[in-house]
Amino acid sequence: MNASTPLRFVIIGGVAAGASAAARARRLDENAQITLIERGPDVSFANCGLPYYIGGEIKQREALAVQTPQTLKAMLNLDVRTGTEAIGIDRAGKRVQLRTVASGATEWLSYDKLLLAPGATPLRPNLPGIEDPRVHTLRSLQDMDRIHGATVSAQQIAVVGAGFIGLEMAEQFVRLGKKVTLIEMLDQVLPPLDRPMTLLLEDELRRHGVELALGDGISGFERGNQITCLLKSGRRVAADFVVLSIGVRPETGLARDAGLALGERGHIHVDQFMRTSDPDVYAAGDAIETHDLVGRNPTVVALGGPANREGRLVADHIFRPASAKPFPGALGTAIVRAFEVSAGITGWSEKRIRAAGLPFRCVTVNDNHHAGYFPGAKPIILKLCWDPVSGRILGAQATGLAGVDKRLDVLATALAGGLTIDDLSELELSYAPPFGSAKDIVNIAGFTAVNTREGLVDPIDTIPDEPSVQVVDVRPAALSKAHPVPHAGVINIPLPELRKRCSELDASRPVVTVCALGKTSYFAARILAQRGFRVQSLTGGLRARFDPRSPAKLPTP
Amino acid sequence: MNASTPLRFVIIGGVAAGASAAARARRLDENAQITLIERGPDVSFANCGLPYYIGGEIKQREALAVQTPQTLKAMLNLDVRTGTEAIGIDRAGKRVQLRTVASGATEWLSYDKLLLAPGATPLRPNLPGIEDPRVHTLRSLQDMDRIHGATVSAQQIAVVGAGFIGLEMAEQFVRLGKKVTLIEMLDQVLPPLDRPMTLLLEDELRRHGVELALGDGISGFERGNQITCLLKSGRRVAADFVVLSIGVRPETGLARDAGLALGERGHIHVDQFMRTSDPDVYAAGDAIETHDLVGRNPTVVALGGPANREGRLVADHIFRPASAKPFPGALGTAIVRAFEVSAGITGWSEKRIRAAGLPFRCVTVNDNHHAGYFPGAKPIILKLCWDPVSGRILGAQATGLAGVDKRLDVLATALAGGLTIDDLSELELSYAPPFGSAKDIVNIAGFTAVNTREGLVDPIDTIPDEPSVQVVDVRPAALSKAHPVPHAGVINIPLPELRKRCSELDASRPVVTVCALGKTSYFAARILAQRGFRVQSLTGGLRARFDPRSPAKLPTP
Repeated sequence: MNASTPLRFVIIGGVAAGASAAARARRLDENAQITLIERGPDVSFANCGLPYYIGGEIKQREALAVQTPQTLKAMLNLDVRTGTEAIGIDRAGKRVQLRTVASGATEWLSYDKLLLAPGATPLRPNLPGIEDPRVHTLRSLQDMDRIHGATVSAQQIAVVGAGFIGLEMAEQFVRLGKKVTLIEMLDQVLPPLDRPMTLLLEDELRRHGVELALGDGISGFERGNQITCLLKSGRRVAADFVVLSIGVRPETGLARDAGLALGERGHIHVDQFMRTSDPDVYAAGDAIETHDLVGRNPTVVALGGPANREGRLVADHIFRPASAKPFPGALGTAIVRAFEVSAGITGWSEKRIRAAGLPFRCVTVNDNHHAGYFPGAKPIILKLCWDPVSGRILGAQATGLAGVDKRLDVLATALAGGLTIDDLSELELSYAPPFGSAKDIVNIAGFTAVNTREGLVDPIDTIPDEPSVQVVDVRPAALSKAHPVPHAGVINIPLPELRKRCSELDASRPVVTVCALGKTSYFAARILAQRGFRVQSLTGGLRARFDPRSPAKLPTP
Repeated sequence: MNASTPLRFVIIGGVAAGASAAARARRLDENAQITLIERGPDVSFANCGLPYYIGGEIKQREALAVQTPQTLKAMLNLDVRTGTEAIGIDRAGKRVQLRTVASGATEWLSYDKLLLAPGATPLRPNLPGIEDPRVHTLRSLQDMDRIHGATVSAQQIAVVGAGFIGLEMAEQFVRLGKKVTLIEMLDQVLPPLDRPMTLLLEDELRRHGVELALGDGISGFERGNQITCLLKSGRRVAADFVVLSIGVRPETGLARDAGLALGERGHIHVDQFMRTSDPDVYAAGDAIETHDLVGRNPTVVALGGPANREGRLVADHIFRPASAKPFPGALGTAIVRAFEVSAGITGWSEKRIRAAGLPFRCVTVNDNHHAGYFPGAKPIILKLCWDPVSGRILGAQATGLAGVDKRLDVLATALAGGLTIDDLSELELSYAPPFGSAKDIVNIAGFTAVNTREGLVDPIDTIPDEPSVQVVDVRPAALSKAHPVPHAGVINIPLPELRKRCSELDASRPVVTVCALGKTSYFAARILAQRGFRVQSLTGGLRARFDPRSPAKLPTP
């Protein structure tokens, strides 16, 4: 056993980053004095599981308590102090001031290395009526218990914010038979995604009875028998209670008071080894500003995966600095399930790239999640954005009824490896009929991107309202009639007839080809382009633009 | 429209590679004369679906006929000649001799570019009795129909060869209520994988009543009311019919007769653009020798995914040579489902690396396919092999009850990108409780590999039969008692007691720590190593070595 003086490692915050750092530290040094300070009563609990306990999908509350102070003592020999708040850092003296929440008693604890992993707190903007106890936020097991209790007698629930947690809550409340209104300031659900990639989710929420109030912000709450959400449009949404999930604010008071450097948006600034501006003080998790792997700029990612790995890296850097690897940066990979539909993103969305003013190209493709001839094939839509100069992937979004997580993970790995659109088209993914296709949708996205770069297809993401444009629907006549393209003056020429009938089109006027999935329209565009037409193909087809359930063929009678 | 003389592109073989080349060629050149020659009656059919039609999981035979000569004419303006065999190539004259199978009539067809995509034929070794019509192989829709017909009255079926197709057939026959014996020369099912990674599959087959005859080759067949497989051990397996799935032989007669260069194992040699030794003759699909992405040496991969992409590349190189990208090489990514269990591989197995004499390290890890606290979490086992010098991943194998395809695809992407074990530990994969874990099993494999490199853990893949070794089972006492480690002299010290009880161990003798999953044993190894013990941890735990269903905890009473 190491006979040198034990290193004193103090960790403020005992959930994802803090608990990961503590566990890793113990594996690296049996001798260290590791103290985990947690204001709340729980450590290392499964915070991503809270909505599912409220909705009854997770039945055992104990399942969420991944560790307890007792198990952490037994397994890891950690000194865990719950119900204890850190209220000050004496950096010169290398000690933190602690206050016992219950008694108010304070004491000082010395450290050799300190980790700040305080997390982030749900936003509660200063709106009229927000102090009503029926306006909930969800962070701790206690918040969860309060909401869980409130659901028993509630009939109508308003969820404010249609991000990941808002969608999970809406789904779980519907599961309990509640009437749910989902209020979102932006004109779409799941704001990190580009709007077209959220249409399927929107449709799925409506099919399950969720009332959507999109493009409408909250301006206050009116108290009565029910609590009424007052929206900026003037709309009023009455509910038995409200869950606010409109974002989080990093808990940086301790860091700021200690004079540690903060980033532009007020998060704790760290280097690639999670060191703050004080080399003996580290920070990790939702409170920090980290490095973006795509933009190579500072970013904020409040997610469990990165928090865990950041915490682990802190322990590595403290106890084995020579072999610690710098944090490569975050992608913000995230996914949500709402009923049968999943949707998610890795890397940057089109709107984020646009806002940053970077050059890019995008395509959207449709396919089945596994071989179409195998029973149970479900639709999936994939959007890919890439750098037109290097071909490097900048981001990907996926939505569908199955296999969304798999494609996001493949693309997150591709992003981590700096892969290009050419690499995607060559990926050799696992294929047997129950699992995939000989050409997976990720390959198809790569093919389509390369075709775009090579000028074989010119994808357009909307049907232009331009009388000179000839909009050609290349689906079979019966399908075109049953599910018409929502646009005036559309010409239907089914693909098999196109070679013979292209004289019906005016070669001096531009053409946009349209189909359900964006594949047949590409085939048609190739036929027309080689006959001298200026032609664009609607990327992602009707599914990605107008109707996420637009059929690719009519049911056989 | 292109006014130059149309290019004459002749393709021999109309399934995966051939049909892909034809379709891509048409998109690139409306003007080309594209002729698809196919000996059989079908083109572009879903050959990976054949077992599932036999077993009734795919109900519509039409679902397997992806395209017909008529649809290929209508959609792609292809000249498709089924029932036509290519019997000779006049390379100097740039023409192929064709024979109509039905009439025997021959003719010559000129080409500017020729593609050989003849595929491979199932092996039928010259064994006594093999000519019996009850000994089937499966390649075409007609083979499928014959086996499908034979199943109606059959009770007992023997499948020879426990590779991908053999396992699919065994599963489907059980689905039909048949008694199945699966015969395999090697001592494991799914020979491309390392044996420990096939234990779960083996167990699953037995649970479903499949009789396994492993480590036993076939020496002939005895004809009678039934057909009896005579095994090398002397064992006799009677069946109503037999399916032979022991491998394939490339159809290279045409190439060889034309004097084209062949590889060491007799496959058609091609360059990175799929050109044979004659620059106007290409080859693609199961008949070629391709480039291995891991070993960077020639290899043979008879799989649908690579075949499709090779065919596509041929068309690119013929019609747009300047923008065609060289084939990056194959990984041999493959997966199979047998009942509830899936298993697969990407890149190289440990035994393949060993046979090549390359340096390597391996770890095996266990986890759930998504967050353990979310209902429906299923076990998954992942084995990772890497280059100890560069850290580059060499191969990965996975097996489990869910999420196997996802992890293989992530690792195939990592292999394609040349990622290292450090990169794996940092992958930011999609996480929400229904989909994954904050630390995915792929991250955990990366962590474990890095820990191995750093000397934090010394994984061992078996319990040594060495009296000086102290085997320490660190599971809870009740679990250790209920599911004992199958080894003599095992000492049970549950992890939480280890720090206090390590004096019970002899520090002068080596220790091997053991648990169900290989995780607690790693924790224990860290505790002991820091107290001066020479300690190794059983990688993958009891699950990966002895019992793939070894429980991680006892059910709560």
